[in-house]
Amino acid sequence: MINVIINGARGRMGQCAQAYLAQQTDIRVVATGNRGDDITDLIKQHHAEVVVELTTPEVVFDNAFAIIAAGARPVIGATGLTPDQIATLEVACARQKLGGIIAPNFSVGAILMMRFAAQAARYLPHVEIIESHHDQKQDAPSGTADKTAKMLREAREQANLSVPVDNTVIEQYLGARGGNCEGIRIHSVRLPGFLAKQEVIFGSTGETLSICHNSIDRQAFMPGIALSCRKVMALSELVYGLESLLL
Amino acid sequence: MINVIINGARGRMGQCAQAYLAQQTDIRVVATGNRGDDITDLIKQHHAEVVVELTTPEVVFDNAFAIIAAGARPVIGATGLTPDQIATLEVACARQKLGGIIAPNFSVGAILMMRFAAQAARYLPHVEIIESHHDQKQDAPSGTADKTAKMLREAREQANLSVPVDNTVIEQYLGARGGNCEGIRIHSVRLPGFLAKQEVIFGSTGETLSICHNSIDRQAFMPGIALSCRKVMALSELVYGLESLLL
Amino acid sequence: MINVIINGARGRMGQCAQAYLAQQTDIRVVATGNRGDDITDLIKQHHAEVVVELTTPEVVFDNAFAIIAAGARPVIGATGLTPDQIATLEVACARQKLGGIIAPNFSVGAILMMRFAAQAARYLPHVEIIESHHDQKQDAPSGTADKTAKMLREAREQANLSVPVDNTVIEQYLGARGGNCEGIRIHSVRLPGFLAKQEVIFGSTGETLSICHNSIDRQAFMPGIALSCRKVMALSELVYGLESLLL
Amino acid sequence: MINVIINGARGRMGQCAQAYLAQQTDIRVVATGNRGDDITDLIKQHHAEVVVELTTPEVVFDNAFAIIAAGARPVIGATGLTPDQIATLEVACARQKLGGIIAPNFSVGAILMMRFAAQAARYLPHVEIIESHHDQKQDAPSGTADKTAKMLREAREQANLSVPVDNTVIEQYLGARGGNCEGIRIHSVRLPGFLAKQEVIFGSTGETLSICHNSIDRQAFMPGIALSCRKVMALSELVYGLESLLL
Repeated sequence: MINVIINGARGRMGQCAQAYLAQQTDIRVVATGNRGDDITDLIKQHHAEVVVELTTPEVVFDNAFAIIAAGARPVIGATGLTPDQIATLEVACARQKLGGIIAPNFSVGAILMMRFAAQAARYLPHVEIIESHHDQKQDAPSGTADKTAKMLREAREQANLSVPVDNTVIEQYLGARGGNCEGIRIHSVRLPGFLAKQEVIFGSTGETLSICHNSIDRQAFMPGIALSCRKVMALSELVYGLESLLL
Repeated sequence: MINVIINGARGRMGQCAQAYLAQQTDIRVVATGNRGDDITDLIKQHHAEVVVELTTPEVVFDNAFAIIAAGARPVIGATGLTPDQIATLEVACARQKLGGIIAPNFSVGAILMMRFAAQAARYLPHVEIIESHHDQKQDAPSGTADKTAKMLREAREQANLSVPVDNTVIEQYLGARGGNCEGIRIHSVRLPGFLAKQEVIFGSTGETLSICHNSIDRQAFMPGIALSCRKVMALSELVYGLESLLL
Repeated sequence: MINVIINGARGRMGQCAQAYLAQQTDIRVVATGNRGDDITDLIKQHHAEVVVELTTPEVVFDNAFAIIAAGARPVIGATGLTPDQIATLEVACARQKLGGIIAPNFSVGAILMMRFAAQAARYLPHVEIIESHHDQKQDAPSGTADKTAKMLREAREQANLSVPVDNTVIEQYLGARGGNCEGIRIHSVRLPGFLAKQEVIFGSTGETLSICHNSIDRQAFMPGIALSCRKVMALSELVYGLESLLL
Repeated sequence: MINVIINGARGRMGQCAQAYLAQQTDIRVVATGNRGDDITDLIKQHHAEVVVELTTPEVVFDNAFAIIAAGARPVIGATGLTPDQIATLEVACARQKLGGIIAPNFSVGAILMMRFAAQAARYLPHVEIIESHHDQKQDAPSGTADKTAKMLREAREQANLSVPVDNTVIEQYLGARGGNCEGIRIHSVRLPGFLAKQEVIFGSTGETLSICHNSIDRQAFMPGIALSCRKVMALSELVYGLESLLL
């Protein structure tokens, strides 16, 4: 049994994590932390081994530092930590030989989608991305598509594959949503009825290979959080990205 | 049994039509016409009832006129006839109460895809198009996507549905292939491994409806040509578009 | 402004409908009904014109009858009414020239998917269904797939299309989930990460046409409920199925 | 420049390979072999370094042995070699320190699809396969689906993941095409308009990950054949499966 505290338990992610972790037979949620609670006290009082930190960007660094200082392992889902802050937390974990993880994305499916895309790009240089999100999203392309495009370009370069020629010479209209990210075309669909979907399509003579990830609910992040709680117990350092745990 | 001549039988479409029509139990290919043959002679000599006209834009009008004058029904697959030429052929068919068809696209699946998309647009105003073609295609968006977008806009207007607001305010990159055709976003994928594929995606609260047509071979046009040979026998006028025969 | 009561407002569908209808500019939710409330009183007191009835199978018939008797138009989402009960409600509405609707499925996308599938089956006899649901679902194929298969078979028969021959002669394994429903193959996928998705795939020489509906949230039923509230105002009879309102 | 002979050049694969390899700047097709030609003579006469062997099951072993004896590297696309024959060829290559490859499937996309599926199965135990082929195919499930299912099961076992429970208790119909291969459900679609497509779908809480390979033309095998011609030059043994060359 791993003793876990969920910090930021009243937010949507926090509530979701509480419900999911409660169903795991090898995890015990010993306490929940909210605004105003002292995380150090909670850890000591409940003998917590892991703290799932799902608070806000303003307080995440201080919380993470306190968690490590109290001897618990941080599982951090918030984005927005600076490289300096990450480095400080790494040193703090290393000193105490404590495991921990900072992950901008806890979806196992999303991580695998990006990993497979990068692997395929070493053999198949022709690739485009279609990412579909709900129509309230304000930016395009999505951060995931942007990151994927950069991974594709790097993989293609490392394999010494040349950039395919684009034969489009006539464009009837302007203003397609998405963009050309360093040679990788991204198509951004924005429609109600999607939460977050991304398809990476490779084309070759006579065949296509498509890797598609579709999230329909923030529940998608829960298995990655549970996996992290288990894996940090065996680590003695702070790692970055859920991909570090998927060997 | 319907007696059919294939004119333009040495081209890729002509060869394909010859092989396909030969397998139909109710159609007899009585002759094939090629450059240099006199189509009027062929029709009279072989008692042809229908001529499948698959020649080149330069000669299609003269051939069509000769076919009708000789009392056969034209099934015309070539594009490029002017409105004036089409009107002339309509008058010629009407005078003789002869059936006939001019179709820019003989794929039954493509026609149904556009029809269903236009029907759905009367209820679901949020829609985008993804069209994927081989990487040698030089124009974007495709003619089919362009036509579909116009049909979607018209259907939306006729149903008095308002144009959805686009909430994208940040665009990281420029240069996505495709375009914004009168309020409908078209995404143009160009990759080897595709021949011609189009997906029309409607989004609504909590759900998506997608209508997707995928051609992998020019064989896709053959059932529409065979259908046309059958249907023109019962017509007494020249119709435009395969959709006219799919009631 | 249409004055609407939501009956069964504490259930998941009821809460969802309350939130959605409150955002519509032409609809005013004047009251909500729950277990113990007298629906007749509520209608009279709040001058309700429409009642969205989202209660349980045990009470839906009595509620619907009371709604009509009180002069309001019923929008009934519950399944389980018998043909006799439906006939009784039809007579009651007809006497008062009141509009109303009973719909087993309020998703506009699902209705259109089935409609388009039935239309396509008149031209393309080769068709299979893939339906994907969450892994807690206990029956296979789904009710929607079953209904769709019957619609496909009827459409195919009416168009005098022959049933395609199945060339499979060697089956390595038994026990695929789904089934052969009167000549239409249904494939039933059961995996977490799906709510309810159905794809109807038509195949023809060189091309496929796929019509795919994907629900990711019960929100998918809300636009159909709002549409029904609007449409029953102009009706003078009780209709069955959301398809009756999508002309 | 690599000097290549295509043996079995009049078959469909042979013609296709000839056209494709002729376009490669680093490969020179120095000769083609057909029924009646002596492959040993051809190799010596044209100083061939590689022989692409695309003949028939009856002669492939003798040809392969002769190719190696003559000091050329075999790239063998035929299936049907017995384990004993493969072992004999391995010894023959090893003695001469000659590279070579025997591959039942030369499609790079298909190999990557299976590889990624096996990788994902280590993290996501819920998985089903949908394979869609043309309606003339006589067996179900396909050989590729069968092989994939076995790879998925092995990967799941090696990662100590438990087999998901199937909650289906009511099955309305029998006779879905496909089957349950050692706990992995395979759905076999057979429709005209497909050549060979396979989708491996993983489901997890709130998300799905789908890996989909679609072949529309036997051209799909050509890049794998060209890759093999290049890679065997640097090998000193006979390898099995294109996956051995995709590191």
